[in-house]
Amino acid sequence: MKNLWSLSANGFVGGKESIMRRGNVYQIANGYMGYRGTLDEFGPDELVGITLAGIFDRVGSAWREPVNAPNAAFTRVSLEGVELSALGSRVTRHEQTLNFANAVFGRKTVFAAKAKTLTLESSRWLSAATPNLGVVTFSVRCAQAARVTIRTGIDCNIWDLNGPHLRQMTAEKHGPVLLVQGVTHENSKRVVVAEAIDLPFGTETHETTDNRNLRVIQLRAEAGRTYTFHKYFAVFTDNDTVNKPLTEAAIETVQQARALGREGCRERHDAEWARKWERCDVEIAGDDEAQHALRYSILQLLMVAPVRGSANSIPARALSGQVYKGAVFWDTEIFMLPFFLHTDPEKAVELVRYRIKTLDGARRKAKTEGPGYRGAFYAWESQEAGDDACTYFNVGDPFTGRDLRTHFRDKQVHITGDVAIAMWEYFKLTGDDSLLLEGGAEVILECARFYYSYAYFKKDKGRYEILDVIGPDEYHERVNNNAFTSMVAKETFAIANATVAYLRRNHPKALRTLLAKIDIQGELPRFREAENLLYVPAPDARTGVIEQFDGYFQLKDATVEELKAKMVHPNEYLGAAQGLAVATKIIKQADVVAMLNLLRSRFSAKIKKANWDYYEPRTEHGSSLSACAYAMVAIEFGHLDFAYNYFLQTAKIDLEAKYKVYVGTVFMGGSHPAANGGAWMTAVLGFGGVQADENRVALNPRLCRKWKSLRFHLAYKGDDFRIRITRTSLTIVPSRANARIHTFLVAGRPVKCRPGRSVTVNYRPAK
Amino acid sequence: MKNLWSLSANGFVGGKESIMRRGNVYQIANGYMGYRGTLDEFGPDELVGITLAGIFDRVGSAWREPVNAPNAAFTRVSLEGVELSALGSRVTRHEQTLNFANAVFGRKTVFAAKAKTLTLESSRWLSAATPNLGVVTFSVRCAQAARVTIRTGIDCNIWDLNGPHLRQMTAEKHGPVLLVQGVTHENSKRVVVAEAIDLPFGTETHETTDNRNLRVIQLRAEAGRTYTFHKYFAVFTDNDTVNKPLTEAAIETVQQARALGREGCRERHDAEWARKWERCDVEIAGDDEAQHALRYSILQLLMVAPVRGSANSIPARALSGQVYKGAVFWDTEIFMLPFFLHTDPEKAVELVRYRIKTLDGARRKAKTEGPGYRGAFYAWESQEAGDDACTYFNVGDPFTGRDLRTHFRDKQVHITGDVAIAMWEYFKLTGDDSLLLEGGAEVILECARFYYSYAYFKKDKGRYEILDVIGPDEYHERVNNNAFTSMVAKETFAIANATVAYLRRNHPKALRTLLAKIDIQGELPRFREAENLLYVPAPDARTGVIEQFDGYFQLKDATVEELKAKMVHPNEYLGAAQGLAVATKIIKQADVVAMLNLLRSRFSAKIKKANWDYYEPRTEHGSSLSACAYAMVAIEFGHLDFAYNYFLQTAKIDLEAKYKVYVGTVFMGGSHPAANGGAWMTAVLGFGGVQADENRVALNPRLCRKWKSLRFHLAYKGDDFRIRITRTSLTIVPSRANARIHTFLVAGRPVKCRPGRSVTVNYRPAK
Repeated sequence: MKNLWSLSANGFVGGKESIMRRGNVYQIANGYMGYRGTLDEFGPDELVGITLAGIFDRVGSAWREPVNAPNAAFTRVSLEGVELSALGSRVTRHEQTLNFANAVFGRKTVFAAKAKTLTLESSRWLSAATPNLGVVTFSVRCAQAARVTIRTGIDCNIWDLNGPHLRQMTAEKHGPVLLVQGVTHENSKRVVVAEAIDLPFGTETHETTDNRNLRVIQLRAEAGRTYTFHKYFAVFTDNDTVNKPLTEAAIETVQQARALGREGCRERHDAEWARKWERCDVEIAGDDEAQHALRYSILQLLMVAPVRGSANSIPARALSGQVYKGAVFWDTEIFMLPFFLHTDPEKAVELVRYRIKTLDGARRKAKTEGPGYRGAFYAWESQEAGDDACTYFNVGDPFTGRDLRTHFRDKQVHITGDVAIAMWEYFKLTGDDSLLLEGGAEVILECARFYYSYAYFKKDKGRYEILDVIGPDEYHERVNNNAFTSMVAKETFAIANATVAYLRRNHPKALRTLLAKIDIQGELPRFREAENLLYVPAPDARTGVIEQFDGYFQLKDATVEELKAKMVHPNEYLGAAQGLAVATKIIKQADVVAMLNLLRSRFSAKIKKANWDYYEPRTEHGSSLSACAYAMVAIEFGHLDFAYNYFLQTAKIDLEAKYKVYVGTVFMGGSHPAANGGAWMTAVLGFGGVQADENRVALNPRLCRKWKSLRFHLAYKGDDFRIRITRTSLTIVPSRANARIHTFLVAGRPVKCRPGRSVTVNYRPAK
Repeated sequence: MKNLWSLSANGFVGGKESIMRRGNVYQIANGYMGYRGTLDEFGPDELVGITLAGIFDRVGSAWREPVNAPNAAFTRVSLEGVELSALGSRVTRHEQTLNFANAVFGRKTVFAAKAKTLTLESSRWLSAATPNLGVVTFSVRCAQAARVTIRTGIDCNIWDLNGPHLRQMTAEKHGPVLLVQGVTHENSKRVVVAEAIDLPFGTETHETTDNRNLRVIQLRAEAGRTYTFHKYFAVFTDNDTVNKPLTEAAIETVQQARALGREGCRERHDAEWARKWERCDVEIAGDDEAQHALRYSILQLLMVAPVRGSANSIPARALSGQVYKGAVFWDTEIFMLPFFLHTDPEKAVELVRYRIKTLDGARRKAKTEGPGYRGAFYAWESQEAGDDACTYFNVGDPFTGRDLRTHFRDKQVHITGDVAIAMWEYFKLTGDDSLLLEGGAEVILECARFYYSYAYFKKDKGRYEILDVIGPDEYHERVNNNAFTSMVAKETFAIANATVAYLRRNHPKALRTLLAKIDIQGELPRFREAENLLYVPAPDARTGVIEQFDGYFQLKDATVEELKAKMVHPNEYLGAAQGLAVATKIIKQADVVAMLNLLRSRFSAKIKKANWDYYEPRTEHGSSLSACAYAMVAIEFGHLDFAYNYFLQTAKIDLEAKYKVYVGTVFMGGSHPAANGGAWMTAVLGFGGVQADENRVALNPRLCRKWKSLRFHLAYKGDDFRIRITRTSLTIVPSRANARIHTFLVAGRPVKCRPGRSVTVNYRPAK
């Protein structure tokens, strides 16, 4: 029977591609940093990456990207003078595992050399309790007495896409602690890595060669005896707020960890993880494949959730490397945030705060991006200060070798509305207005201000229009009246107006202060007018289909296969201005359907079906964000088998790692946290049928065929609930600690949920 | 000394390129048809083309283009059984001429074969008196008695770019007249060609082989005797309004011409040409090079001016072939019309009427091109009915072999304003309101209606904007607030408002009828508002430079040389969405400067200089329309040497024919009537300093260094004037037949011009 709480692999196939994919699948992270699923003995050629959250650097005119730290988990063993590596020919057996329960990576490899056999075991984890800390346990056992050398320490050979980012690197030894430090090119930010070990055997000397700061441990191993040591490493950067020098903080951290010991450290780590799973696990009975994939997806999200108080967000490739410049996209607000909002709002706080922190960056972008733009134009690819890392030439052209002008940065304006919606969603589902008061309301008003400055009024039609944009379907650039974008803009005006109304009622003084601070009082009537008069393409009266943008229906019809058959270069981009998709109705990903999903309560199942039927055959699903939107909408009109396939596709994306990893010469591999979030959404909000808003939680389950039951946890307005859905009944278990009674709407019927009082109702799945 | 009334060449270099260029340079035309400057014995491989005005056809999905007629001027000679051709090895001497005075093409070639010598002479002209008629005079003379065979008749092997267009071709003989006819693919329009000769020697038989309908003339030539025959040919199509069958009309035409005889026909032709030159010649003393080139340019315009009553216009490549689909561009209104307006307004009538005739086509385009467009969106490439021949993919991409999406058709909206301005210009300079009443006012109002439907209002800025356009600089597509386009749109509103005011005062009933017909009364207040509130980028307060469009100043600076150095394919297009120029400030052709020229009375010399200085170094002059705009503006601030160089470049473009003739595999060769018009404009309106509007003619001459004097004719409000400018004095000779006294403004001083009373004033050239 499949272990539903772990992942494992036997054997190790070498080759760049395989090493890279394993590195993605087996990665671990703790919000502060990620560590790719590589092996102890690997180096930069094998894409070892310790990617740090929220610290960025740019070298020359290359892409700005997150900084990777030196690798303090480096260990290499030689047996009778023969260096051992899982990539070499000495491997008898290899297995590696990832434990979902606590995000511990383990490996066990048996090597044979000089007629002797050595078994190497190690485990690695990044502390969920102490974000700067990582711990490795490493052991060797020889079947025969043998001479073993272990080199362990800090490898300063760093894999970078656009590096090297650290200069002035030093290799230091402070008593028992090894330390390296360097500074970034752009802002001279310091990165310090320290390492200490518990070594109960052998003799240790110190070596600094090949850009490594190493301990050399000589051991005459007895036959059959296991030699184990623990390693504690810490990473600190100038982003950490510590009231002492960083080197001191790093040394202290590893010393304290060593003093506490591996078991002590692990207990705290495991306790944190238990708490996470307690809140966030989803249990599916009757479908091990789905259970395993979904849990792996949730694990990914839990690992990369930002450290509390960091106001960091989650990049599109999370902490799996430097792909996509470590930037935060709309993925976070639309595809990841719902998971955190519905399970662990404390993590959602950081994601939302990140947009408050980067408001000034969004203001800078508005000022510089267009004539007369005002307010907050959020970055398409946002880094730590909210400036846009997206370039105007963001896709390589294999025909000319030049970069293609794309308009992601300057025209994909829905990002601003995505931020406003996320901000408001947090408030609606938590009831917590503190973020609004701490900058959230300012964000929302500046988002509305931006859209007003972007919108034009069409006098002869008596309406505002949002012109010249890219919607989620990036294959059609610079279109007018894109349904998704216009809807999101209209929503932003509505949210801004609701925010003002809410503050006026509840925090009049704060409102006055805010309006004065950003001098926006005079613009409020405009926002009310724009909420009413902004045009959004409506469903066609006859067919119910919403035109994706002005003129879409007049484009040439085609199938994805026809399009692909016309490709003359495997890496040619189908979008930008001249791509093969541009003149056709083929879209990259859900666009109208993404809108129907985002604002699912506004549209009937009939409209949803009409648009799904129309757009799905015309969708390439060239983005990992597409399938889950189609799955979500399909559930609402009863296409459960379709939805299940898309769900599984989404949930398995990082587990199977079959995605394309190179576009031209650009490495694109890494994790897909938005798809992970999409998998959770499809399971819980889709099949589970959860729809929460500021007034109530509605539950309209539509379990897919295979699922006997679905259990999950729900956070709502500060209270907690466990939900269990079978094919005929639904049980709500409100936490004993809940503050108040809630009325849920189960399949349309109101159900009172009293603290600590479980309630079960029978239901008939909606059709 | 150079003959300033003709062009001649000696020798004939074969090769495709050379044959093609000769064909362009030596072409003749009479408004009804053009005949390329090819030789009697040439066929389709040598690009023989008899291109007909105003009749178009499309074969399958290929480009729609004008129809070429079968070649009735075909004659091939053999000497002692050896076929003679200027391309063969038998040529001893060859010369060819084009007589500017009457547009007669002549050639004389001496051949040697079988130890005998034959001199072939011919002349060819297309009647200026009888548009359907062409005449050839052909003679042979042998130095020794020899056996000569002459095959002459109609060659149905037609050179087409996207043909063949004629099907159901027949070869007929009606008594002495040879005739062929066929019908077009698309609309089954009939094309009939008839031919008759005056043959005073030899024996004639009839032959139809190789797709030719021929007479075979056997001659035993005596030594030293010249054998001459005349050929009369006629072309008729279903576009001709004749009250009899076309075949009959064609036969009658050639029979009547033969009856009248070559001399009689020629007299009428020459008389017409004398009248043309009388009105249109420009005499430059002291600069033969300029004189010759300018006269050649004027010849080109005179030859291709539409037949009276045809309501045809002049295509961008005139009648030199099928290049640019035989379509009419803005070239006509902006670069050719001024010549006709100022010299021979009767020809201008046809050009203006053409836009009235095609108003319905412009309405159709508005309806189909965008959501909610109304009024008249004139075709970027206009054919006979005003439908747009421009494709959405109008430029080939050498990298992919695909066609690039360009926005000439859907976004180069200034064409509509160019039409309105031309319509109004005709009225202003002629004082003739008949065209306004016959549809011109309707055109103007529909043009304003189009711009209103295209314009957006920016509420926070209190202004209308014209968004998402291409200006004359086609290297930057889809820009906002392009100065040229916005100015032209604003001008259109002003013209519409002035039209209404004029009609209200002078033709109130016609106005009422018109307003009711197109149901536009309710929109008139909008036009007044738009005239006031439409935003046009203004000169920068400090530098005086007008930003070409929003964001232009932020583009990368570069030189044309830098740009060209980056080209990796000689035929790669610098524009469309991804061309090398797009991200830079490099522009294809005058844009802001074209606006300063078009509305020259609105801007000071200082502003003109500031913009010239800024934009000229950034201009590739990739269009033949560019140099003359820069020349015109340079004159106004005294850069006369610069202006002279650009003038000469423009005036010589078709004479030297050094332009690029192939873009990718697409043939682009042919004449440049817009440049011809630009040369005239630069000479007369520029150096001559003529500025006429509805109130008066102003003359501010700034003769360039070389010119001792400049003489030209001027038509104004139905009266005629001869002007002679020397370096210090200016003489106006009002025609005796003038209807009234005019006051001209010479270098700022009012000068009374009484019918028949010449007046001379001294002036100091403006600085």
